[in-house]
Amino acid sequence: MPREITSAQNEKLKDFSKLYRRKYRERTGQYIIEGIHLVEEALKNDAKPVSAFLRGDFGRCGEEKKLVKRLEEIGTELFTLPAALFDRIVATETPQGIAAVSSQPDCEVGHFFDGAAPDDNVIVLDRLQDPGNLGTIIRTADAAGFRRILIMKGTADIFAPKTVRAAAGSLYRVRFAYADDPAQALELLKRHGKKTVCTSPRAETVCFGADIAASSALIIGNEARGACEAFLRESDLLVSIPMEGTVESLNASAAASILMYESVRQHLILNKQ
Amino acid sequence: MPREITSAQNEKLKDFSKLYRRKYRERTGQYIIEGIHLVEEALKNDAKPVSAFLRGDFGRCGEEKKLVKRLEEIGTELFTLPAALFDRIVATETPQGIAAVSSQPDCEVGHFFDGAAPDDNVIVLDRLQDPGNLGTIIRTADAAGFRRILIMKGTADIFAPKTVRAAAGSLYRVRFAYADDPAQALELLKRHGKKTVCTSPRAETVCFGADIAASSALIIGNEARGACEAFLRESDLLVSIPMEGTVESLNASAAASILMYESVRQHLILNKQ
Repeated sequence: MPREITSAQNEKLKDFSKLYRRKYRERTGQYIIEGIHLVEEALKNDAKPVSAFLRGDFGRCGEEKKLVKRLEEIGTELFTLPAALFDRIVATETPQGIAAVSSQPDCEVGHFFDGAAPDDNVIVLDRLQDPGNLGTIIRTADAAGFRRILIMKGTADIFAPKTVRAAAGSLYRVRFAYADDPAQALELLKRHGKKTVCTSPRAETVCFGADIAASSALIIGNEARGACEAFLRESDLLVSIPMEGTVESLNASAAASILMYESVRQHLILNKQ
Repeated sequence: MPREITSAQNEKLKDFSKLYRRKYRERTGQYIIEGIHLVEEALKNDAKPVSAFLRGDFGRCGEEKKLVKRLEEIGTELFTLPAALFDRIVATETPQGIAAVSSQPDCEVGHFFDGAAPDDNVIVLDRLQDPGNLGTIIRTADAAGFRRILIMKGTADIFAPKTVRAAAGSLYRVRFAYADDPAQALELLKRHGKKTVCTSPRAETVCFGADIAASSALIIGNEARGACEAFLRESDLLVSIPMEGTVESLNASAAASILMYESVRQHLILNKQ
């Protein structure tokens, strides 16, 4: 049975709220998932939530009831809150009545290629800042079969609520690792036989003319400044995305989507031949 | 010389603030552009701002001074505000000290194809809701040369501050029109020789196998529910974007980016032959 929380001063609730801050997420290795869909995705992917907070009226009807029962079965610590208190502490504008605490997966760089096939593709996020962009890229990477995402130091937190929401469950199906600097990232990628491909508006090779079907590591740069010098200098290949007239750049998640799906397209053609 | 505003009760300032609401934007046909870059883009594209609000400390140094001078020259009504008041009324988290009022362009459906080339592509936005998605799609459309965007009734406001920001100047280089319902949209598109192409997860044709190089109208559906029945039933072609395993869908702006750039890719190949 869920325990009742009635005060905003409750220690469990205070610990939960702190997880909206990056520092606390990093310290505890936990993060918040909000809404029915994300909690269901966690269960579907065998990621047991540590605890879950329910709005008083949550869990009465079919789907919700089943979800609460399932959480009880696997030993997730459950709490109920008065509606007003619940709606105040969660970040979503139209809260669905459930928010849970999840453990962050293993993001050790040494484990990044565990279980990888030799021709698996990788995406490298070089200091991206927009939480929505990050989430969208994670979701597109999952759909495109780019199941390894290398996060460069200086990138926004992939476990921020906005990112988690935009990633829509893909967070559980992709493996992440953090890299301290481009040298470490490039060494790792090259050691595992990946062709490093960096986007640059000045590259002569258009992305559609580059072989990125397999064993590629696509490097996506910061929204405003692009990829850093070291990646531009040391990558195996620089590619550009063609743009009309006066447009300066594409949104980083648009660029990532275009490149990853160009890789998917090339892969499909190879498999047909 | 800019006039000084010292009170939040100033009528000009109250009118400005109201433009953060859709209803008032629709009533006045105006919208807000925030930041140096967007105001510069307006000027670059001959869209004269009606008025501009400056933070007290704005316009002292080089770039800013030039921008204010240029606005004065073209007859934009200028106002200065105390820093605290300015920062309170604008929406951006790190305001740059300038916000202007722009007139919405002609969005009459009857003028949508004015000046169009026969093989121009179109993108149709069917009730998209996320302001960031909308802005990203506008920016990608501009870069991909999709310079006509048909907005279905029920779509979020393309002149909302978040969308304007995400569109990053592309708002000025793309022509928009509003359509009341799919029947009107389809009639218009077919009359102008466009092949209507709708995304559907159940479509047998993969987008990479469909000819969408030119004269195509790509229909992007609502984030949660996809395109409406009428578009799915009446379009010339249904296409799917291949997705791995358990991923349910792509973000709408990712899907739009992938499709528009597949069109760009096909176009480039045709031009090479």
